[in-house]
Amino acid sequence: MKLVTYRYEEKEAVGVISPCGNYVYPVKDLGFAYDTMNELIDALSGEGLCGLQKAAEAGTEAEIPFEQVELLAPIPVPKQDMICLGINYMAHAEESARYKKEAFGGERPFAVYFSKRIGEAVKPYGEIEGHLDIVERLDYEAELAFVIGKDAKKVEEKDAAGYILGYTVINDVSAREIQTRHKQWYFGKGLDGFTPMGPWIVTADEISFPPKLGIQSRVNGELRQDSNTELLIFDIPHIIHELSQGITLKAGTIIATGTPAGVGMGFDPPKFLKAGDEIACTIEGIGTIKNVVK
Amino acid sequence: MKLVTYRYEEKEAVGVISPCGNYVYPVKDLGFAYDTMNELIDALSGEGLCGLQKAAEAGTEAEIPFEQVELLAPIPVPKQDMICLGINYMAHAEESARYKKEAFGGERPFAVYFSKRIGEAVKPYGEIEGHLDIVERLDYEAELAFVIGKDAKKVEEKDAAGYILGYTVINDVSAREIQTRHKQWYFGKGLDGFTPMGPWIVTADEISFPPKLGIQSRVNGELRQDSNTELLIFDIPHIIHELSQGITLKAGTIIATGTPAGVGMGFDPPKFLKAGDEIACTIEGIGTIKNVVK
Repeated sequence: MKLVTYRYEEKEAVGVISPCGNYVYPVKDLGFAYDTMNELIDALSGEGLCGLQKAAEAGTEAEIPFEQVELLAPIPVPKQDMICLGINYMAHAEESARYKKEAFGGERPFAVYFSKRIGEAVKPYGEIEGHLDIVERLDYEAELAFVIGKDAKKVEEKDAAGYILGYTVINDVSAREIQTRHKQWYFGKGLDGFTPMGPWIVTADEISFPPKLGIQSRVNGELRQDSNTELLIFDIPHIIHELSQGITLKAGTIIATGTPAGVGMGFDPPKFLKAGDEIACTIEGIGTIKNVVK
Repeated sequence: MKLVTYRYEEKEAVGVISPCGNYVYPVKDLGFAYDTMNELIDALSGEGLCGLQKAAEAGTEAEIPFEQVELLAPIPVPKQDMICLGINYMAHAEESARYKKEAFGGERPFAVYFSKRIGEAVKPYGEIEGHLDIVERLDYEAELAFVIGKDAKKVEEKDAAGYILGYTVINDVSAREIQTRHKQWYFGKGLDGFTPMGPWIVTADEISFPPKLGIQSRVNGELRQDSNTELLIFDIPHIIHELSQGITLKAGTIIATGTPAGVGMGFDPPKFLKAGDEIACTIEGIGTIKNVVK
């Protein structure tokens, strides 16, 4: 099931994509009276999602042709900052250390967790705010993100899959010089308009676990990143287990699993983004988000 | 004016402390129908606060004796992660580098920003969850925090004061070994129950700007930190200006300004916290929060 947040006739709503992809079913017309994805996740945590799926399979006459809606980020305003993994593919660890050893080098016996402030997530085909007045080294990072479906506290690795509502694609847009000069990455990662997300949440039942999905990014059509999510250094069960030992991961929490090699700073000379560049991030079985830098 | 979130007769509400400190005036009985501090801040951003102040000066017969309420953190569930400054007093920079140069050393031409996840802030006299099953090096950090009163975007330093709703005291509880081994500080700072806050928000009109306030912490009565908020390396106008160039600081955003010297890791040998320790953090003109490690 593909869950979307969309705008139609000037109203935001939550919906399910029809089996053939040509319609959006508003969840309200399927009998689920939720205004936002956060409300839906809170209400349906765990088994409730199954009821929505059955209703979606039956369909509704209130279907809206897909081409008439504007897709928004599936969770436009997350309830908390997104949690991110840094340097979680080996080949990306190597390119990062080459770029700036002081900031990214060293051994990696432990996962690197940071957070990304999302005032409002960028639409799947919306514009990235480049902040080119203060940013010279603007970069992209295609990532698989998963959404927690029910509160997770002290979860064992073997049980981790049961806490995942679904998956989406994010672009962890980064201002490299801000990220490194302030030591902690928060500021350089959390600028307004730095988190394209979407095009939807694919529910966990549609993706075999752990996800082994091709992941690519292209800038103006040129293939830059091309890897597979099975190559994560710290995998999803590790992440959910480790974090949940100390932090209750609330339903609706978004966790981005890190980016593979091929980001702009990894090239010699680096290939940073400029105004007008189009970045497409694709994950097999989920879809593509495509965003232009303004 | 002191703004509080409190529990009375099993209900959470927002109130104003009476001028003599012996009563709480529920804001609803002052004519302001808000259930939470976040709602109040959103609604009164800017000039609206003045009306509340006038109403509080007039008082209400629905006053509640202060000793009958239980104070909660003034913003129990922040809308976004709290933004924090790292290493923002020179003497603390020195003690931190002494403790672990690799993690904290180096020059500081730029402010260090990180964020602290707050599932739910700890009550001003509530318990700190020590997570002593996974944490050996538990530490305290008394800090002045300010709350943004209206959305701040590209603010000049000279205008920064106008964006501050008020001030509160926080204890930036930290798990040192988790903070340093994962490189980025997010995980070690963001554990459940790691952010005592309060006892209230003192509105900005009561504190001369920039704040020059004594700040102390005591562990089991022993003075540990003793400094003044005028000694910030990067001051509040710098912080609001710099961050707001790229991040819209929404009304309700909490920013903690960093801690002075005297934290547990700064002693030789270090004085980390253990179960039963009581930490009191005091800031002149605001008040004291006092929390026991469980």
